[in-house]
Amino acid sequence: MGLSTEQLNTSRLRKCRVVISLIAMTLIPPVTLADVISGFDDVTSETQLELESRYDSDLEAAELDAWLRELSSRPHHVGSAAGYEVAKRVHDLLQSWGYETEFADYEVLLPTPKVRELELIAPQQFTAALREDSVTQDPSTSVRDNLLPPYNAFSIDGEVEAELVFVNYGIPEDYELLERYGISVAGKIVIAKYGRSWRGIKPKLAAEKGAIGALIYSDPGDDGYGAGDTYPEGPFKHASGVQRGSVMDMPTYPGDVLTPGRGATKRAKRLARTKVEVITKIPVLPISWRDAEPLLTALGGEAVPKDWRGALPITYHFGPGPARVRLKVEFNWDMVTARNVIARLPGSEYPDQWVIRGNHHDGWNHGAADPISGLVAMLAEAKSVAALARSGSPPKRTIIYAAWDAEEQGLIGSTEWAEHHAQELKQKAVAYINTDGNSRGFVGVGGSHSLETMFNEITDKVRDPVLDVSVKERLFARLKLSGNEQQKKDLERQRLRISPLGSGSDYTPFLQHLGIASANLGFYGEGSGGSYHTLYDTYEHYTTWRDPGLTYGITLAQLAGRVTLRLANAPVLPFEFGGLTDNIELYIQELEVLAEKMRKDTDKANELIGDGVYGLALDPTKSLGPPKEHEPVPYFNFAPLQNSLASLKRAVTELKRVQLKGSATLNQKLFTTERLLTLQDGLPNRPWYKHHIYAPGFYTGYGVKTLPGVREAIEQREYDKVADEVQQLVIVLDGLAQRIREITEIDSE
Amino acid sequence: MGLSTEQLNTSRLRKCRVVISLIAMTLIPPVTLADVISGFDDVTSETQLELESRYDSDLEAAELDAWLRELSSRPHHVGSAAGYEVAKRVHDLLQSWGYETEFADYEVLLPTPKVRELELIAPQQFTAALREDSVTQDPSTSVRDNLLPPYNAFSIDGEVEAELVFVNYGIPEDYELLERYGISVAGKIVIAKYGRSWRGIKPKLAAEKGAIGALIYSDPGDDGYGAGDTYPEGPFKHASGVQRGSVMDMPTYPGDVLTPGRGATKRAKRLARTKVEVITKIPVLPISWRDAEPLLTALGGEAVPKDWRGALPITYHFGPGPARVRLKVEFNWDMVTARNVIARLPGSEYPDQWVIRGNHHDGWNHGAADPISGLVAMLAEAKSVAALARSGSPPKRTIIYAAWDAEEQGLIGSTEWAEHHAQELKQKAVAYINTDGNSRGFVGVGGSHSLETMFNEITDKVRDPVLDVSVKERLFARLKLSGNEQQKKDLERQRLRISPLGSGSDYTPFLQHLGIASANLGFYGEGSGGSYHTLYDTYEHYTTWRDPGLTYGITLAQLAGRVTLRLANAPVLPFEFGGLTDNIELYIQELEVLAEKMRKDTDKANELIGDGVYGLALDPTKSLGPPKEHEPVPYFNFAPLQNSLASLKRAVTELKRVQLKGSATLNQKLFTTERLLTLQDGLPNRPWYKHHIYAPGFYTGYGVKTLPGVREAIEQREYDKVADEVQQLVIVLDGLAQRIREITEIDSE
Repeated sequence: MGLSTEQLNTSRLRKCRVVISLIAMTLIPPVTLADVISGFDDVTSETQLELESRYDSDLEAAELDAWLRELSSRPHHVGSAAGYEVAKRVHDLLQSWGYETEFADYEVLLPTPKVRELELIAPQQFTAALREDSVTQDPSTSVRDNLLPPYNAFSIDGEVEAELVFVNYGIPEDYELLERYGISVAGKIVIAKYGRSWRGIKPKLAAEKGAIGALIYSDPGDDGYGAGDTYPEGPFKHASGVQRGSVMDMPTYPGDVLTPGRGATKRAKRLARTKVEVITKIPVLPISWRDAEPLLTALGGEAVPKDWRGALPITYHFGPGPARVRLKVEFNWDMVTARNVIARLPGSEYPDQWVIRGNHHDGWNHGAADPISGLVAMLAEAKSVAALARSGSPPKRTIIYAAWDAEEQGLIGSTEWAEHHAQELKQKAVAYINTDGNSRGFVGVGGSHSLETMFNEITDKVRDPVLDVSVKERLFARLKLSGNEQQKKDLERQRLRISPLGSGSDYTPFLQHLGIASANLGFYGEGSGGSYHTLYDTYEHYTTWRDPGLTYGITLAQLAGRVTLRLANAPVLPFEFGGLTDNIELYIQELEVLAEKMRKDTDKANELIGDGVYGLALDPTKSLGPPKEHEPVPYFNFAPLQNSLASLKRAVTELKRVQLKGSATLNQKLFTTERLLTLQDGLPNRPWYKHHIYAPGFYTGYGVKTLPGVREAIEQREYDKVADEVQQLVIVLDGLAQRIREITEIDSE
Repeated sequence: MGLSTEQLNTSRLRKCRVVISLIAMTLIPPVTLADVISGFDDVTSETQLELESRYDSDLEAAELDAWLRELSSRPHHVGSAAGYEVAKRVHDLLQSWGYETEFADYEVLLPTPKVRELELIAPQQFTAALREDSVTQDPSTSVRDNLLPPYNAFSIDGEVEAELVFVNYGIPEDYELLERYGISVAGKIVIAKYGRSWRGIKPKLAAEKGAIGALIYSDPGDDGYGAGDTYPEGPFKHASGVQRGSVMDMPTYPGDVLTPGRGATKRAKRLARTKVEVITKIPVLPISWRDAEPLLTALGGEAVPKDWRGALPITYHFGPGPARVRLKVEFNWDMVTARNVIARLPGSEYPDQWVIRGNHHDGWNHGAADPISGLVAMLAEAKSVAALARSGSPPKRTIIYAAWDAEEQGLIGSTEWAEHHAQELKQKAVAYINTDGNSRGFVGVGGSHSLETMFNEITDKVRDPVLDVSVKERLFARLKLSGNEQQKKDLERQRLRISPLGSGSDYTPFLQHLGIASANLGFYGEGSGGSYHTLYDTYEHYTTWRDPGLTYGITLAQLAGRVTLRLANAPVLPFEFGGLTDNIELYIQELEVLAEKMRKDTDKANELIGDGVYGLALDPTKSLGPPKEHEPVPYFNFAPLQNSLASLKRAVTELKRVQLKGSATLNQKLFTTERLLTLQDGLPNRPWYKHHIYAPGFYTGYGVKTLPGVREAIEQREYDKVADEVQQLVIVLDGLAQRIREITEIDSE
């Protein structure tokens, strides 16, 4: 599905030369020991740095470019002939470099469109084209064999006819405003803009509010002509462009919808399709703005407020009606083989400690940016790592390169593999390092905060390919100009604050289901555009507008390869807990601020409502009414959480006083710390998600919610659940503290 | 020119029942003495309130409606037959009610268009229509005899041909950004959006930057379809609509351009037109978005940043070129008679103390909203006041009703009259109370802060015509919902903070040239639209979208009439200086904050530039560069100002301890306090503007700059001028303090 800018640009960091080993670990390591890297001592650091230097020398932009051209030459979605050919080609390359390779196939339910019909039937007739134009300047867009037309995977089948209502981005606050205008979507079809939430949230919420169908369109103000020149004159969305994408309820569980929690092997026990909870409750279809414009133009009712407007040359209205639409979608609900490619390079010292590196290979169409731009960086990495091994520097731990299939429909290939191998992975997986679509500009690092120190060291080493500074220094420069107060404050922290992970790519089953420390890497910020999940995500688009010459492709390989190699070779795994506790402390503070703000806002709003202020301030000739009153927000007992955090911090302080000696046992205890952040029962209403520090938002989708149990209980005003969720977090933090004391004692023995 | 929402919605206030007389004056009067009003004692208060009640009973909405329909039935600009007929009709009405009436005619230079040509000559050909469409639903728009086509009065003649550059709103910060993109407008024609500054600033700045021509258009995102439904389906700007308006350099001086500082009588000494400084330096033409769209579409260069975009369905680019335009404008530079109507009702006790009440009568076209909606409220007031006089309650002071001509071209009628009668006005004018276009919603009061207490009392009395509260309470409700921090803070002040006045209507010559305490009144906030200065400012538009039934027209008459009657009848004029010093204190604090913020921002920006942060943070493939360094902002000595303010506050405190007894001398000393806020030499580079507390911004136009000498020296980074300007303010404040001590002593004698 790719890295979106939103996910990446929450990365925060600051220029400094944090070069620390566990030997001299502080809560937030400030020490500068040039060329001694975390997990290595003076001698092994030198060896490792020399290895990384050799690693770099084998990376070739021309090769990435050739692979990109080849692998994105045709649409290659899961289940298609071209898709299997891409898998085969990736497999053969990896095999040719000396990896032990296999196809890891799963039989999964995959809907493809059979009927897609959308028409405006009143006040006038209009039939939506639902088709993207080929453009002569980009020959790839004429390669349409095997092209999946625009649709949202895991919409249910259905035919509905009703008045239309415009719901802005279709997120919770939009429905609150609709309610103030006295507009209900019950029995209506909604039309929502793409953006501000993961797309699957839009039909989920619409259905909860009683809507019977949903359209999602890309407003030109967001990624079309309103954002910049459109394809092929510029990178932004063509008038006919449609963002495809899954609307499976991934915040409940991703992967094959029939086999939650189990690998979708041929003989796996399956749910009946009718029992599946994560297929949408109402039919959904994504459309272009060219198809949306006649529908929106035909809407009546009051004009929407300023911040709901898009860039179409019309006055946007709420409806409902007089626009009336008929929507019909039917899908082939086929069982399809999702084919992951798995390649192993056995570890020379710790073969049972696995460093897993993944990127998906399936694309909605040509998929040049998403996922091939990331995949080719991984291939370059795998090639160079194999070459190092052949030249006598094999990894100490096993490295597994995985090219996932069926990511686009719901992280399916990776999830099935992770579920299938869950027990072994929980034992052996050191970390999972993900990439997906790449771009140009600033380094984006999201991940487990026990890896934050390692990422600080690596982003200090990797150089920006255009400007003569480290990628971290470049990002710091951006943060210095940022208007975001938290980011500015983060600069004072004197180190990169990596972003917590929500969802949106293949790290989710590893991190949030299995508790494997994970990271997601890429570059962003200077290659924006509107090709995401459209016909226009082609080689031509990518190499013209996103990363010409694949210079940042090489930089990504340098970045991710170092991560792989350090995790594979470090005598003591570079897990560090000062950065983790520092971030958890921030999240707890955020909870306190959240509760206090909600409390004040609620009291203030209730007071204003009670005083009749809205009645006097609002235009009596318009329909906008006051917001509804909310129950006052109680004070919560966060003390157990603060006590556990304090205890955890003391344990971390103790740990930094000892000098750790690498051993299989020690390292196993280190890398399985992330498992302790999960609990078997998972999160409320979604037991598949077991991580209690990071989760995708139940009502935001990809966007992360940290300390999700507590945070969502507060946000969703389910105050009586807060104490229980605090208790769950206490268990998690206490468990981690206990483990850290064990690690400290191992070394003291 | 009318009240714009921007001018009005800076009014700030808060619910309270401040009912205070000078007898018990505090710095910010908190006392609640029901039904005793400032300037009156118990007995006279009762009489006055009863008078006001009778006054109200004579106001009839149907009559306002009939006058509105009649006076806006045809275009009636200055110099036109219809314009003279409107003047005659107003004159005759006033005369019929018993006023001593006269026409006060001035011979003034007035350009009307002879040639208006605009074409795109490359990369393709397009000829702008420069014409507004009649719409069948509004018959008035077909009444086109005598219609002034779209133009900007006081553009120079000229024909220019050059590449086009888009400059956003054409305000100083826009040129700073253009510079960062490496774009110069020298030798180019600029196209700017209407808005964010008074229109005359746009060609003024463009010319300073070297442009050779300027186009100003109304972007549909600001007041067209992007803001709401367009005329006639809604109130917003028709695709062909063009905002006419003066581009005379009014921040230098308004009025007849040939006779600055002198009344433009037949025999007045006149400048040669070639010597006039306030005519634009480059040709200017306003256009519709329908005419602008092909020009903007043809622009190349980089796409503009997000906050520069408008609502046209295009990607906005900077240019310059390839769009190349030819602009030709020529005007009839005719001498025209501007005909003011002046009506007097002599005062029964103090005939030589004049309360002046004005509203212009000329319109760009039909002028239903601007100015007739305000004029009919004034006519209703004049009629009722005359009836009171006839029934035995004549005003104690002389009341003058003035209907000004040629306001639209530059406050010409009022300015010439004020200049012509300057000496007498300085002696006799108690106050000048202005109205202009009215609308619906919230009370807007701008004015001299010595009148703030009176306005608090009056806005407590006048009821909203729709909701059962005082107009002040309704405004307080709005402020309570405001996101503006200063407005929220103002609520704590427990009283209405009236807005300082910049310019934009006929109060300017009285307030800022002569130092006559002034106010500007109207309602706003619920009648927004895009008819301002277009063909569509008709009776139909106004009564459908702005104030159906003229209910707020009646409320305006109730508000303004009370002001007139209290100023005319108060035994002790309700000038109060606690509110004034409180506001001056706020403005001094603002200066300190401004200097500190500029100092910090400048230091920070210089540091970031010096550190090369921009070079690392900005996309190296794009042309946006770092901002330019600025000289560090020095610390300024505001102590003299603070000392003068402290002394003034002590004098005000002394004054509130005495009980004033009404006398001609006392009142003369009271109402001429405003004169002391002016200095003969005026403001830097614009000696016509003599008021040192309030002025229109030199680079913002209508928008007010308080303590303008000091503030603009800082803002324009002319730091060496600050000390002198502080000294000027000290003279002003010390003079006022001295006068207040004199007033205190009169009473102690």
